[in-house]
Amino acid sequence: MSTDTDADAETDPNSERAREELIELASEFYDQFAEGDVPRMRIPTRTKSNIEYSEEKGVWVLGDRRTTRTAKTKAGAQKLLKAIYTIEFLAQQLEEGRSSTLRELYYLSESWDNEFAQFNDQDDSNGLIEDLEVVSGVTREDFHMRPEESGATLMGPLLLREQTRRGEREIHCQEDVGEGGYQIPNNPDTIEFLENDAEFILCVETGGMRDRLVENGFDEEHGCIVVHLKGQPARATRRITKRLHGELDIPVVVFTDSDPWSYRIYGSVAYGSIKSAHLSEYLATPAAQFVGIRPRDIVEYDLPTDPLSDSDINALESELDDPRFQTEFWREEIELQLDIGQKAEQQALASRGLDFVTDTYLPERLGEMGVF
Amino acid sequence: MSTDTDADAETDPNSERAREELIELASEFYDQFAEGDVPRMRIPTRTKSNIEYSEEKGVWVLGDRRTTRTAKTKAGAQKLLKAIYTIEFLAQQLEEGRSSTLRELYYLSESWDNEFAQFNDQDDSNGLIEDLEVVSGVTREDFHMRPEESGATLMGPLLLREQTRRGEREIHCQEDVGEGGYQIPNNPDTIEFLENDAEFILCVETGGMRDRLVENGFDEEHGCIVVHLKGQPARATRRITKRLHGELDIPVVVFTDSDPWSYRIYGSVAYGSIKSAHLSEYLATPAAQFVGIRPRDIVEYDLPTDPLSDSDINALESELDDPRFQTEFWREEIELQLDIGQKAEQQALASRGLDFVTDTYLPERLGEMGVF
Repeated sequence: MSTDTDADAETDPNSERAREELIELASEFYDQFAEGDVPRMRIPTRTKSNIEYSEEKGVWVLGDRRTTRTAKTKAGAQKLLKAIYTIEFLAQQLEEGRSSTLRELYYLSESWDNEFAQFNDQDDSNGLIEDLEVVSGVTREDFHMRPEESGATLMGPLLLREQTRRGEREIHCQEDVGEGGYQIPNNPDTIEFLENDAEFILCVETGGMRDRLVENGFDEEHGCIVVHLKGQPARATRRITKRLHGELDIPVVVFTDSDPWSYRIYGSVAYGSIKSAHLSEYLATPAAQFVGIRPRDIVEYDLPTDPLSDSDINALESELDDPRFQTEFWREEIELQLDIGQKAEQQALASRGLDFVTDTYLPERLGEMGVF
Repeated sequence: MSTDTDADAETDPNSERAREELIELASEFYDQFAEGDVPRMRIPTRTKSNIEYSEEKGVWVLGDRRTTRTAKTKAGAQKLLKAIYTIEFLAQQLEEGRSSTLRELYYLSESWDNEFAQFNDQDDSNGLIEDLEVVSGVTREDFHMRPEESGATLMGPLLLREQTRRGEREIHCQEDVGEGGYQIPNNPDTIEFLENDAEFILCVETGGMRDRLVENGFDEEHGCIVVHLKGQPARATRRITKRLHGELDIPVVVFTDSDPWSYRIYGSVAYGSIKSAHLSEYLATPAAQFVGIRPRDIVEYDLPTDPLSDSDINALESELDDPRFQTEFWREEIELQLDIGQKAEQQALASRGLDFVTDTYLPERLGEMGVF
C-alpha cells in the first residue's frame, strides 16, 4: 500500500505545493527565533465585521484586518506551538500521500509528546486548520484533511476520471453508476472532466426530488447534470459545482424548498458563506441562478404549504438586510412570502401529479430563465 | 421513457405480486359490501405491547393481537377510504413501473377528488403504508415507495448487477467506483451478487472511520466488504447487509462508537427495531456480531473519552432491561460503562496513530471473534 501512495504523492503537484507552503510557515518562525524576535503569525481576522461583499467577484471575501498571534503571552505561545505540531503532522501526511479527518487530527494530538500542543476540543483543531488555510492560501483539501461526512451524489451525461489511491477510475455518471448515482469524493480536485453532453447543471436540495428527476429521466432528456445538495451543501459539493460551471461553461441553477433556510442554501452555492469567506473564490459560483420553489409559485400553482414559524420570519427579515439578497428579485419574493405567511417544499409539486415538476414546472421556469 | 419502464414492470415478478396482493385487499372490501357486511380490515397491532422477541428467529416479531378497522364509525370509514385511494394509486404506480417517495404520496393525496381520502399529515400517510405492508405481507420497497434519503455506500471485493430503470449495470465495488464507493439504491432487491472475493462484512457507523478503513486498504487486504451505516441505518442498508450475509454466507460484524445509541444501531442491524418488527425477517441479521468500540476498550486502550450524560445513563439502564441485550457480554459491558461513566468515539482510536485501527485493533479483535 505505502509504495502506491508514496508514488501518488510524488506526482501530485498540489500536495507538493501544500507541503512547501506549510514548511515555509514553519521556517518563518525559525527565522524569527534566529533573529532574536518573538515568533508571531499574522492572520486575517475571520469575524463578521471583517467580511466584505466583493461586488467585482460577486462573493464574500475577507477584509484587510489582521490579528497577530505572538509568543509574548502564554496563550499566544500555546497557539503557535499547536500550529507547529500540526504543520509537522500535515507535512508528514502529505509526504506519505495520506489523509485524515478533522476529528482524527483532534484525537491524534493526544499522542503528541508535548501536552501543551494538544487540542482542548475539536473547535480548537478545526479553527487552527482554518488559520492555516488562510495564512498559507492552501485549502484544507490540499492538506488532505477530510470532513466526517460528505456523501452527495451526481447524475448526468458526464464522463470523468477520478484519481483514487488505487489508481485512475473512468466513470460515466449515467452509464457506469446505479440509480444512486456517482458519489462525489471528499476532494473533487482529484477529478478530471473528460467528455460531456451537458446543457446545464441543476443543484437539488432534497433526496426525494433528486430521485424524482432521475426516475423521470430529466437528466437524459435535457442534458442535465443533477447534483444533489443534501441540504446545506458540503464543501466538496460546492467545489464540484463551481468546477463544472467553469470548465464545462454551462449554466448552474439551484432548486430548493421555499423557505429562508433554503435561500441560504442557494446563497452558499452562489455567493459563499461567512465561515468560509477565505475560500469563496474556490467554492462559490456567483453565476448560479435560483429556480425555485419561489413564494410566487406557492400562489400561482396553489401549492400545499405550512405556515411560517417565528424563526422563519426572523430569518426572512434578516435576509432582507443581507447584502447577498439586495436585488429586486429577492426583495419582491421575500416580501411576498412574509405577506402570505406560508412556505412550501419541493415535493409539494407532487400535489399536481408526479410528472408536473419535469413536464411543466421546470421546463416553463428554465425557459423563462433562458436556460432551455 | 415510459416504454422502457412498462417493459420493466412486466418482467418484474415482485411488482406483479405486490399489485395482486393490493388488489386482493381491495376486493375483500368489495366482497364485504356485496354480502351486505360493513367493510373492515384486521391489522396486527403495532404497539410495544404486541412485539415479541422470537427466540427461534432471534428477531423481534409482531404478536397475535389484532385491531379491526371498520366503516361503522366515521373515523374508521375514513381510514378505509384512504386505504382504497392509496391502493388504487399504488396499483397504478406498479402497473406503470414507476415509484414515488413517502412524502410525494402525502402531497399527491391533495389531488384526490374525495377530500375525506386526503391525508392530514405525513404520519397519517406513513402509518397507512405500514398498515398495508403488515396486512399484505408486501414490503414498502415492493410497492415502489421510497424514503426521502438513503445514501449509504459500500466498498469491497464484490461484483454486482443492478437492475436500473435504464437497464442493467454491472459494477465492481472496488474497481468501478471512486473513493466514495458504490451508492446503495433505495431498493437493494434490484441487485444481484455476481462474483465476490469477500471473507466478511464490516458495517461501520461513521463516515470518518469508513474513509479511514478504505484509505488504509482494509477492504483489499482482508477481503472485507465495508458497509457504511451512516448512523442509524436506512432500511436499504439493513436489507443489503442481510442479503450479503445470507447469499455470500460470510460473517457480519458491526463497528460503532461506544455509547448506548450506537449499541442500538448494532441492535437494529442484528435484531430489528420495534417500528419495523413486521419486517424483521426481511431486514435483520441475527448473526451479526458486535466488534466495538466496547467499554472495556476504553479501559484497555486508554482511549480519549467524554463523560456520560444523564440521557446516556438512562439509555444504558434501559438497555439492561431490553431483551435484545440480555446476554452476559452486554450486561458486563454496559455495567462497566456505567461504572467508568465514560463513552468514546470510533475515531478516538486515532489517539494511538492513524494505522492503529487497521494494524492492531481490528485484527486483534476479529481474531478473538474468530472472523479472521
